[in-house]
Amino acid sequence: MQEMKHHTGRLEIRTRGKRLYPFTREVAEWVASTGVETGLLTVFIQHTSASLVIQENADPDVALDLADFFERLAPENDPRYRHTLEGPDDMPSHIRSALTQTHLSIPVIGRRMALGTWQGLYVFEHRSSPQRRSIVLHLAA
Amino acid sequence: MQEMKHHTGRLEIRTRGKRLYPFTREVAEWVASTGVETGLLTVFIQHTSASLVIQENADPDVALDLADFFERLAPENDPRYRHTLEGPDDMPSHIRSALTQTHLSIPVIGRRMALGTWQGLYVFEHRSSPQRRSIVLHLAA
Amino acid sequence: MQEMKHHTGRLEIRTRGKRLYPFTREVAEWVASTGVETGLLTVFIQHTSASLVIQENADPDVALDLADFFERLAPENDPRYRHTLEGPDDMPSHIRSALTQTHLSIPVIGRRMALGTWQGLYVFEHRSSPQRRSIVLHLAA
Repeated sequence: MQEMKHHTGRLEIRTRGKRLYPFTREVAEWVASTGVETGLLTVFIQHTSASLVIQENADPDVALDLADFFERLAPENDPRYRHTLEGPDDMPSHIRSALTQTHLSIPVIGRRMALGTWQGLYVFEHRSSPQRRSIVLHLAA
Repeated sequence: MQEMKHHTGRLEIRTRGKRLYPFTREVAEWVASTGVETGLLTVFIQHTSASLVIQENADPDVALDLADFFERLAPENDPRYRHTLEGPDDMPSHIRSALTQTHLSIPVIGRRMALGTWQGLYVFEHRSSPQRRSIVLHLAA
Repeated sequence: MQEMKHHTGRLEIRTRGKRLYPFTREVAEWVASTGVETGLLTVFIQHTSASLVIQENADPDVALDLADFFERLAPENDPRYRHTLEGPDDMPSHIRSALTQTHLSIPVIGRRMALGTWQGLYVFEHRSSPQRRSIVLHLAA
């Protein structure tokens, strides 16, 4: 029996502080580069202090309000945290990652991700210091 | 090399206000219609103000309590929201979507989704006004 | 046209109370046993009162703090819950499941899950009594 075709790739997204970083274009370019007509895309971030979300790509205020919400929901310096050695932003970063996504699964149809009109892909950075975030791409075709 | 088989489909779910709408049956029927014995199903909603959850399908109170919880967690009219032009329910809808799922990945085994006994699929509507929600189905076989 | 190869498997994880149970090793062994070089792994839990998370595997305090956070976010005995017949821990368990993951999608590259250095897989048990949790594994290759 023949095996399916797998395309794999990597992206590095550099972040500078807590917020959402759009990266739809980078992923779309990689998908286009594979030439795949129909398939299943998986976007996987190799971290537990940054995560992925699909969110509105129109009004930049949405991303700001979203980041603020998570700041209130899982604040820094909660005296109940045990895990504090890696800094005040680390334990909240794990909580925010658990509440959002480590991976996205997106059908590819007609050589493009089957996103809705207003959907964009974002890296959600939860740490304050600059980071290089590794993302694995997989496209089954 | 041979390519895998891809089945793609679409569902439209009409909603009338904030709550969970069961749609396990519609998805199950589509899976059965493909004739696929073993595969991987992806259910993807093309919106950022409605989302997907897998939840208990037995007691309808679970869905009501779940909707209430998210209403309390991300309430309308929080004066800290910047994004208010699309109505008081819009920014909470983006938060609730980020906290739940845009896509579900479900193995198909023996021509059926490998769901547990009590698991059902729901569209979680976060807007107050009637909506038509577009869902993309992908089955790799 | 040839079909892709599907490997399917099952794991049972026994839990004894609310907390995170690491199971990276069990999944890694199953992936290795398939002999698959490149593919897409799906890990699916067949329950709505236990869920899955990818979290830091270094400091065990992270898992404790994470469990505590969810205990505060969705506490037992909230008088607003309607669904109380299955015990005080049941409705919170559904909320916590909705906020985390029912399935994980992880690319397999070079015969291994493409996890980051600090990433581990956990079953997040939300019920107090001992449970046997069924997990379906699917690897598309």
